[in-house]
Amino acid sequence: MSAKKQEPKILNTTDFQPDGFKWTRLKKIDWEDETGRKRVWEAAERSTRGKAGVDAVAIVALLDHPSKPLSTVILEQYRPPIGNTCIELPAGLVDGGESPEDAALRELIEETGYGGDGEGAGKATVEEVSPLLVSDPGCVTLKDSSNAELTFTLRSVVSFSLTNANMVLCTVRVKLSESDPEPKQKLDEGEHIIKRVVEVQELYNVLLDYNKKGFTIDARLAHWAMGYHMATRFDKK
Amino acid sequence: MSAKKQEPKILNTTDFQPDGFKWTRLKKIDWEDETGRKRVWEAAERSTRGKAGVDAVAIVALLDHPSKPLSTVILEQYRPPIGNTCIELPAGLVDGGESPEDAALRELIEETGYGGDGEGAGKATVEEVSPLLVSDPGCVTLKDSSNAELTFTLRSVVSFSLTNANMVLCTVRVKLSESDPEPKQKLDEGEHIIKRVVEVQELYNVLLDYNKKGFTIDARLAHWAMGYHMATRFDKK
Repeated sequence: MSAKKQEPKILNTTDFQPDGFKWTRLKKIDWEDETGRKRVWEAAERSTRGKAGVDAVAIVALLDHPSKPLSTVILEQYRPPIGNTCIELPAGLVDGGESPEDAALRELIEETGYGGDGEGAGKATVEEVSPLLVSDPGCVTLKDSSNAELTFTLRSVVSFSLTNANMVLCTVRVKLSESDPEPKQKLDEGEHIIKRVVEVQELYNVLLDYNKKGFTIDARLAHWAMGYHMATRFDKK
Repeated sequence: MSAKKQEPKILNTTDFQPDGFKWTRLKKIDWEDETGRKRVWEAAERSTRGKAGVDAVAIVALLDHPSKPLSTVILEQYRPPIGNTCIELPAGLVDGGESPEDAALRELIEETGYGGDGEGAGKATVEEVSPLLVSDPGCVTLKDSSNAELTFTLRSVVSFSLTNANMVLCTVRVKLSESDPEPKQKLDEGEHIIKRVVEVQELYNVLLDYNKKGFTIDARLAHWAMGYHMATRFDKK
């Protein structure tokens, strides 16, 4: 552990929300780093975080069938910011007053039908809840060596992040019976989501295949699948 | 697979970058959904994507030592948007003209020392490169039932995303020798990053422990660790 001169701290934040924007705003953050230097960070954030302090949940569903391999459900959904259909875990916003676990079970029912009261829905229980996670806390460092408009010292490093969006990942086990049919989604009007059941062991290869076909893959789903893949590959060594 | 009436498409985009913002802008996207309905999406994006089309890389380093368990490196770094120290994978921006593999090896050297030319750096090779991934493509759906200012129909569903930021995850194997010391980081001035070597098998528990101590955990690192954990747990059943 390297010695710090001080704890970094935030001095001031200023919001900018252009006319016509309802859900999203830009934020300028003045902060002081570990050496006492004053720096600036640009961020975007949702202007709508709920009371619970958790923006969103994602769900790894474990479909537990008496005679089929352990499977999970992934979704195909068109996403305007990338102009493409994205492959994702079931996920959604935590409503005000709702727990992440409740939100996970509700979203799973809506987007996949599993855990609901329809035919083949099975019985869903939340098996594990992750800590509060941040989706994009600033994995990018922008190096600037020349731009005179910058307010920091020469050759400064602008570590920046786009969002403070947070989430929780819930693992939900769905107990199915031998002859359960595929349950029906309960999508809201205006939602166009295609679900696909995939064997967990095959998930990584299925994602590579989606990629070859021109779909975009969500980073969190891919990281889960790559971690799983790594463990099974490692065990085989 | 549900039938689609048409492929969704983007009609128009409008950018807003308030005075004083250099790296980040807001974007209003007019699009037409699967049923031909015109809708609006708000997004934020980096205004600095490089030529390669890949914003960033993250690195899962596999430290391969003759007599120690397979380990990886994670980082502690203060992130102003969340006002807290975040636990993350090594990561960084892909420079113009650089391949994601080169960026991964360069960032690994800078942030951890592994793969560089210092003592104990070992020999690093990129073992696997993920497809292009999007970090936050819109896992959140905001339900609005009443707001009159909304331009969409009543009880519309506003699926929205904050960013179009993309990344690639590289798995890098680092071959170490028996008596290699811990290599030194090569941080840029202004970077304050603490590295920690963790047994891969212990990663999930280490993250839970960080969470208990008040650190924030990056979603992608957590998803990788949870996928790995799930596979080893599943194999034990």
